Amino acid sequence: MAGQGSFSPERPQPQNDRTGLWLVGAAGNVATTVALGLAALRQGATPPIGLTTELPPFEGLALVPWSHLALGGHDVRPCDPEATARALAREGVMAPDLVDRLAPDLDAYRQAVQPGVHALTRGDQDGAQRIATVQSHLRAFMERNGCARLVVMNVATTEPPLAAPLPETPDALRAAIADGAPVPASVLYAYAALDMGAAYVNFTPSPGASPPALHALAEARGTVHAGSDGKTGETLLKSALAPLYAMRNLRVHSWFGQNLLGNEDGRSLTQTGALASKVRTKSEQIPSILGYAPDTQVAIHYVPPLGDWKVAWNHITFEGFLGTRMTTQVTWQGADSTLAAPLVLDLTRLVDRALRRDEVGVLPYLAFFFKAPLGTGEQALHRQFDMLLAHLRMG
Amino acid sequence: MAGQGSFSPERPQPQNDRTGLWLVGAAGNVATTVALGLAALRQGATPPIGLTTELPPFEGLALVPWSHLALGGHDVRPCDPEATARALAREGVMAPDLVDRLAPDLDAYRQAVQPGVHALTRGDQDGAQRIATVQSHLRAFMERNGCARLVVMNVATTEPPLAAPLPETPDALRAAIADGAPVPASVLYAYAALDMGAAYVNFTPSPGASPPALHALAEARGTVHAGSDGKTGETLLKSALAPLYAMRNLRVHSWFGQNLLGNEDGRSLTQTGALASKVRTKSEQIPSILGYAPDTQVAIHYVPPLGDWKVAWNHITFEGFLGTRMTTQVTWQGADSTLAAPLVLDLTRLVDRALRRDEVGVLPYLAFFFKAPLGTGEQALHRQFDMLLAHLRMG
Amino acid sequence: MAGQGSFSPERPQPQNDRTGLWLVGAAGNVATTVALGLAALRQGATPPIGLTTELPPFEGLALVPWSHLALGGHDVRPCDPEATARALAREGVMAPDLVDRLAPDLDAYRQAVQPGVHALTRGDQDGAQRIATVQSHLRAFMERNGCARLVVMNVATTEPPLAAPLPETPDALRAAIADGAPVPASVLYAYAALDMGAAYVNFTPSPGASPPALHALAEARGTVHAGSDGKTGETLLKSALAPLYAMRNLRVHSWFGQNLLGNEDGRSLTQTGALASKVRTKSEQIPSILGYAPDTQVAIHYVPPLGDWKVAWNHITFEGFLGTRMTTQVTWQGADSTLAAPLVLDLTRLVDRALRRDEVGVLPYLAFFFKAPLGTGEQALHRQFDMLLAHLRMG
Amino acid sequence: MAGQGSFSPERPQPQNDRTGLWLVGAAGNVATTVALGLAALRQGATPPIGLTTELPPFEGLALVPWSHLALGGHDVRPCDPEATARALAREGVMAPDLVDRLAPDLDAYRQAVQPGVHALTRGDQDGAQRIATVQSHLRAFMERNGCARLVVMNVATTEPPLAAPLPETPDALRAAIADGAPVPASVLYAYAALDMGAAYVNFTPSPGASPPALHALAEARGTVHAGSDGKTGETLLKSALAPLYAMRNLRVHSWFGQNLLGNEDGRSLTQTGALASKVRTKSEQIPSILGYAPDTQVAIHYVPPLGDWKVAWNHITFEGFLGTRMTTQVTWQGADSTLAAPLVLDLTRLVDRALRRDEVGVLPYLAFFFKAPLGTGEQALHRQFDMLLAHLRMG
Repeated sequence: MAGQGSFSPERPQPQNDRTGLWLVGAAGNVATTVALGLAALRQGATPPIGLTTELPPFEGLALVPWSHLALGGHDVRPCDPEATARALAREGVMAPDLVDRLAPDLDAYRQAVQPGVHALTRGDQDGAQRIATVQSHLRAFMERNGCARLVVMNVATTEPPLAAPLPETPDALRAAIADGAPVPASVLYAYAALDMGAAYVNFTPSPGASPPALHALAEARGTVHAGSDGKTGETLLKSALAPLYAMRNLRVHSWFGQNLLGNEDGRSLTQTGALASKVRTKSEQIPSILGYAPDTQVAIHYVPPLGDWKVAWNHITFEGFLGTRMTTQVTWQGADSTLAAPLVLDLTRLVDRALRRDEVGVLPYLAFFFKAPLGTGEQALHRQFDMLLAHLRMG
Repeated sequence: MAGQGSFSPERPQPQNDRTGLWLVGAAGNVATTVALGLAALRQGATPPIGLTTELPPFEGLALVPWSHLALGGHDVRPCDPEATARALAREGVMAPDLVDRLAPDLDAYRQAVQPGVHALTRGDQDGAQRIATVQSHLRAFMERNGCARLVVMNVATTEPPLAAPLPETPDALRAAIADGAPVPASVLYAYAALDMGAAYVNFTPSPGASPPALHALAEARGTVHAGSDGKTGETLLKSALAPLYAMRNLRVHSWFGQNLLGNEDGRSLTQTGALASKVRTKSEQIPSILGYAPDTQVAIHYVPPLGDWKVAWNHITFEGFLGTRMTTQVTWQGADSTLAAPLVLDLTRLVDRALRRDEVGVLPYLAFFFKAPLGTGEQALHRQFDMLLAHLRMG
Repeated sequence: MAGQGSFSPERPQPQNDRTGLWLVGAAGNVATTVALGLAALRQGATPPIGLTTELPPFEGLALVPWSHLALGGHDVRPCDPEATARALAREGVMAPDLVDRLAPDLDAYRQAVQPGVHALTRGDQDGAQRIATVQSHLRAFMERNGCARLVVMNVATTEPPLAAPLPETPDALRAAIADGAPVPASVLYAYAALDMGAAYVNFTPSPGASPPALHALAEARGTVHAGSDGKTGETLLKSALAPLYAMRNLRVHSWFGQNLLGNEDGRSLTQTGALASKVRTKSEQIPSILGYAPDTQVAIHYVPPLGDWKVAWNHITFEGFLGTRMTTQVTWQGADSTLAAPLVLDLTRLVDRALRRDEVGVLPYLAFFFKAPLGTGEQALHRQFDMLLAHLRMG
Repeated sequence: MAGQGSFSPERPQPQNDRTGLWLVGAAGNVATTVALGLAALRQGATPPIGLTTELPPFEGLALVPWSHLALGGHDVRPCDPEATARALAREGVMAPDLVDRLAPDLDAYRQAVQPGVHALTRGDQDGAQRIATVQSHLRAFMERNGCARLVVMNVATTEPPLAAPLPETPDALRAAIADGAPVPASVLYAYAALDMGAAYVNFTPSPGASPPALHALAEARGTVHAGSDGKTGETLLKSALAPLYAMRNLRVHSWFGQNLLGNEDGRSLTQTGALASKVRTKSEQIPSILGYAPDTQVAIHYVPPLGDWKVAWNHITFEGFLGTRMTTQVTWQGADSTLAAPLVLDLTRLVDRALRRDEVGVLPYLAFFFKAPLGTGEQALHRQFDMLLAHLRMG
């Protein structure tokens, strides 16, 4: 594979049996909650609520135990997980005494976070160097923690959609990077991870490993990737509710979804072009489940006083027998970080299993966790769950 | 079978290939909407919205076409379907011009409705006679309409729960009826139907064919039955939504369901002991899906200005990762009659198919249509749907 | 006054005691509902629900009776009120048999509607002519119907905000019109009306008579005007609810308002620059009532399947004693046309009274009916109502 | 006045200028929150949010400052305010560090709480003694704290309605108490308070000082009383919203209110006859504001997982112009204790002012704070607020 010209082809040599989870966007609310939650699970300080992999069907799969996960990450921002966790506790997202108790773990996490890299803007000549730097961080982390496998997960702020398609092969992409093409940070990280045989999971709607060149790279390096955009709120609810109308042959005329967000993700979504990424991954869902396209709009607004809480309001009009017009209204109110963090942990375990089993390429059976699943068009939550269980039962 | 002492053992001789649908509670909103809807479907005056059996997976099953269904019924109340339909149209449930157009069909239906029988109160000596009368009506209807098969469906006002268990065998039940035991009307109709080999479907939470004696009678006569309590609103919604919390391992703490009803069903529910029947069939669902028992309350109130419309409000509190308290709220607003009527038609087709295929006993694969499915504990909507499809695919 | 250079200074001579109501936007849903409603009121075919002027405090004011109102209007679109009313009836906004019964009245209204004028685009040389044409229509209408007074009401589709301020005096405005300045249609109509001494009411957020030159013209001609933007839904609700937080000293942190509209107004709002006009009139309200500025966002989306129905969802977060975070959520669902039409009739009566009493200039005491009241900053509904009653009691 | 046979006629001699607030039900959530809140206000540890008397119109009234209020109370239950406050903090009602900081104040409050008295059951012979005991507690409290005036406020768990009317004069009531008549605890406390010239405020729907004999006693002793049932949630919202329909002449057909409560108040309401008291004070409101009686139902359910939080859902159907059926839905979610506590403090200040000004009898101008205001039928929130301001401005 080195002959294919990768920046750093060597796959790290496992020294023991641990698995690394590397969070891109390590300073954010989701990453901080992952760090706090992982520590809490290890110490038995919280019940395993919110974790799908703790349900009975997942027993006997020998998924990696919490004690065998090592945690690190990158961020371009300063990382102060204790301060971030305290802010979340003040908003009522978690109990303050949990933060007190686990403050040392948060500090250890802080020390494992490295400065991140930025997107390449046109003409930047150090793209290869940035990838190499990331990879050196990843390798050092794996060695220090005795990790046999590594899952790199993107939980950073959403990027705008790609202005133009990227080159479609790993070689062409590598050449473009070297030549100073504009490439989003999520693509640089995905390249760095996959190139060294680590798994890559895109928990955001940013490009990440979605472009064809990255998928080809994963296959070339014999590793896996999954995504995209963690399904934590409104889309989760829709994926459970929309099949009702399909199964009962009730004709949906309109499905309006309004999302109010108060955290950094909300801010960036509405102040950059990133909103388009998010809205796109959210709006393909309903037509996919129903088999026709009602008026489906998704709006996202930034409401700072909500903090980490998010509120999703869905207004659905549908037609029943003999033309009767009916409506359903749903309001979902949850905390973004504690909805997302257990999915990050579930995905890490399941992707780690894929690495152990030498699976290669995209993992469509993880659709259950994503708004815009790669490798499958399945959007109905129960079908996604069945798909996951069926895969795991295959042996 | 006559030797087993039935009141009227002869199975009617089919003269041709039609199927009869006999509605107990023929004067009510649901029955009227079935009559109007069936006429509209026959004439192509309405699209087949709301009918599950019109979905693609049901093609190729050779289900009975609308043109081959004959409609009649019993009611203890006067039956004026055109007036009833016009009242529904005034409430916005259906278009007035549809009623104009189909008034002749409603009149034909009216002429096929016979006076019903009442519950036996202690000491009534004519129970056997009442059953014989019902059966003579059913036979006459079948002959007049050339029906080879008959489905008797209970859409009458909900009865209170049984004060004491009924005898557990057909013979003992027949003896009790003859001896003047108190027996609800729904049981008399179920007995009459099953005894003559007709299928019986209980679309209400009344006893109907749920008691063991009736089930045994169905098996003895080689016919089928299904129930109970058509799943048309809040319970339908819960059966789609509750699996979300189960699959994501989110811990539900409370699930409060408030139902506002304005029609005759709502009136009778709150003015008789019948409410207990309804609340019971509604409250076993959530624990069944979740596998544990959160605080699950179901309230039903009669709000006359709503007319045929019903409003269900669900308030759900649940715990996510790290103890975060979150909530979901759902408001479902629909018209009772047009939610129920297509289920009646779907059930008729599927039960007719079971009769044609000589199935015997309870039909658990119809759980998809019921709040309190007989013969299975499955309450998750998508599992019920899969169960239905799997049965139909068996050949 | 002719010396001031008006286009058509003569005030029409009353021949008897009727009052004319002239609707600009005569073909739309609101105007059609006004025509239907006025006919229904005259014939006693509908109770006076929704009309504030039919409440007890308004008795004894000798407001113009429905029988003494004559109705006409302008529209640039073809006007077919019966078809429009039938479409509304199909959506459940009103009963179809009401349209059957009043079809002749709708036809009479149709015959009283004249072709409207368009906005002046830069360089148009016939502005004076357009105003003269409008005035000739108004005068002919008054003469034909024996009207002593005329109220011109703008219920046309919302225009974008003014790109640049208009000249501030009537003379300068008239000169600009003659010189080919770009002037919105609503300003042309307001000029035409006020200039001939008719009253002008702006039921939309379009410029209308809001610019200073029009106000000055009203004063110069001794007539009255009022506006702007009829308060029919979400803003109405806010004006009743926001004072609660103010009176109880509960600190509102965010007030998010989402409006879903399906009619022509919704379409034009989202496809032109007109949205800015609407959002502006909606967003000044909460700070005005509370005395501070929480995060107050107003979103408007066009959802065609809703037709004339509109749905407003409000999500309010507020802080109580000791920092407790609480929320209120409100969903308002109503039909735009039947919410608006009675306000048009109420305003006509009250403005007619102002004309009879020789009031001059803006009528701030009509704030109760408007989202962005002219002449007062009062936004609390009950204070607006008190202001109205206090004025009427003055004698 | 001693000649009228009071149990303890001497009015306490003020030694200085402080005012006492004595809470009946001192161990409950509301009382605990009052204690915590008062300490927080004194120390500037919380902003005065939620306190109407801190609004600009109340400046210049020289209301008693927080530093001059002394706090004590009675409870039949053990009183552990710190534990109670910590439980509330765990539910997210208030910040845990506020409890840390103010724990000494809560302990001081605990020491000021005396064992309470129970209701008299038929044949109890020590009614006079119970009253005397209460009065001795009150006097000792006033002396110890240098209180010139005392406000006794009932925040105890709701009692059932009176089974039979009480005697109508103070003398007859005193005789009945001495003779072993069954008398609720709230009446004993009200008697004790008023009899010694203290003010009595009934913050619950229990009888308290509502019966005529107590009112007469207040007048005889020259003191004041007010009530009943603090308006903290759904009823508050209704009193702001219902006037909208009245002012706009929109015809309400149904107004359904569902209250979910998880605290001790909710528990006792649904497990005793007390629910009737609560529902009654809630259901007279809408007809009073509208002037007619729509279908108005109020339901209250106990949902333990909610803890101190309460959720009120209101579903309103109304008719607009031309018969259009419209709906409003409101969900109010707040914490019972922090909604109630500031009202207790506001009322204490305003009743203290009444005592200073030698007002006598019931104080109808405090209707703004109550679900079932004594001395007035006014239920519209803004009219109640105007009534309060008007009284205060009278000088």
